[in-house]
Amino acid sequence: MTKRQQKILLVGAGGTLGTAVGRALRARGHEVRTVGRSSGELRFDVSDPTQITALYQKAAADGPLDAVVCAAGSVPYKPLAEFSPDDWHSAFAGKILCQVELVRQGLPHLADRGSFALTTGILGEQPIPTGAAASLANGAVEAFVRAAAIEISPQRVNAISPNVFTESLGVYGDFFPGMGSVPLERVAEAFVRSLEGAQTGQIYRL
Amino acid sequence: MTKRQQKILLVGAGGTLGTAVGRALRARGHEVRTVGRSSGELRFDVSDPTQITALYQKAAADGPLDAVVCAAGSVPYKPLAEFSPDDWHSAFAGKILCQVELVRQGLPHLADRGSFALTTGILGEQPIPTGAAASLANGAVEAFVRAAAIEISPQRVNAISPNVFTESLGVYGDFFPGMGSVPLERVAEAFVRSLEGAQTGQIYRL
Repeated sequence: MTKRQQKILLVGAGGTLGTAVGRALRARGHEVRTVGRSSGELRFDVSDPTQITALYQKAAADGPLDAVVCAAGSVPYKPLAEFSPDDWHSAFAGKILCQVELVRQGLPHLADRGSFALTTGILGEQPIPTGAAASLANGAVEAFVRAAAIEISPQRVNAISPNVFTESLGVYGDFFPGMGSVPLERVAEAFVRSLEGAQTGQIYRL
Repeated sequence: MTKRQQKILLVGAGGTLGTAVGRALRARGHEVRTVGRSSGELRFDVSDPTQITALYQKAAADGPLDAVVCAAGSVPYKPLAEFSPDDWHSAFAGKILCQVELVRQGLPHLADRGSFALTTGILGEQPIPTGAAASLANGAVEAFVRAAAIEISPQRVNAISPNVFTESLGVYGDFFPGMGSVPLERVAEAFVRSLEGAQTGQIYRL
């Protein structure tokens, strides 16, 4: 099978992960259209579902996309007792709703065998103190991926669930004692696998 | 170890599951205080976090509770493409936020070794068409349980994740082809196990 060039929408392209994923996808010969709140070719805030609608109208104006990658997502970190309802709503909008709506609204703008690759993280399975919202969001997105996969076939959807990045240990290492880490390059590889492979409903844990 | 009577707050006491759980807990000699939107001793809508605050002020006015059980929770079912942002918000409020806030707000009203028992369901792991919101909510709550457990110890929290109830096969059986079912009595037993046992951060799958 000859590798075919894909037209890929990369949301969160300016972040630590998004930068690494964009580099890996371009190295594979793909066309990457970058999306960000404050950087990138397309400026949209995907935590607002109406902006996702506008994003797709612009990004798919010249024909269907082959893949949508979401490398964006943010949640508040604090001791459980200090959370507020607004904090949970913030996690919902910032890491769940945005990814779910990128899939749902993206369906008519994606090629027949196109794919979505979402981002979760190790805290969904292996929690740390102050990380309850991150765990909740990751668990939600991973269960959604399993559910969406059986409805959207032959379009596909997977999630990449990385450990803390090796490159981020200096900043976040103390929160992940003895838990190891994963180099950004290996995480980016998993996105390549998701887009160029044929599996769906998978959670790639790194 | 002698079994000690527990003072238990049972949210969603009037529903199919809540009724079975209340019966099992009373059969074990526990005191059950029933909560519901439109039935029960205490009338509160736990999908509104401010009503959870009021609920606890009333329910724990005579001293800490030994356990809080949530047998409530509702989410919309429809084909993925037909969901709207409001539907996701509805699932969030109806099955995620209510359970998360019952735990968080309940911490100061719960005995030192008291416990929470939440409800998820098989769709978190085993999806069916039209069930994306249910899957998402169950995955979120299960990951939250793992995360909360490590922060609230020696207080405890578990989730019970049942298959479709045998008693509900007449109504919902067609949505669960070949997936088996579980009698309500066995599901109720898992709540007894969660409350009278010593484990935490567990998902009891039935």
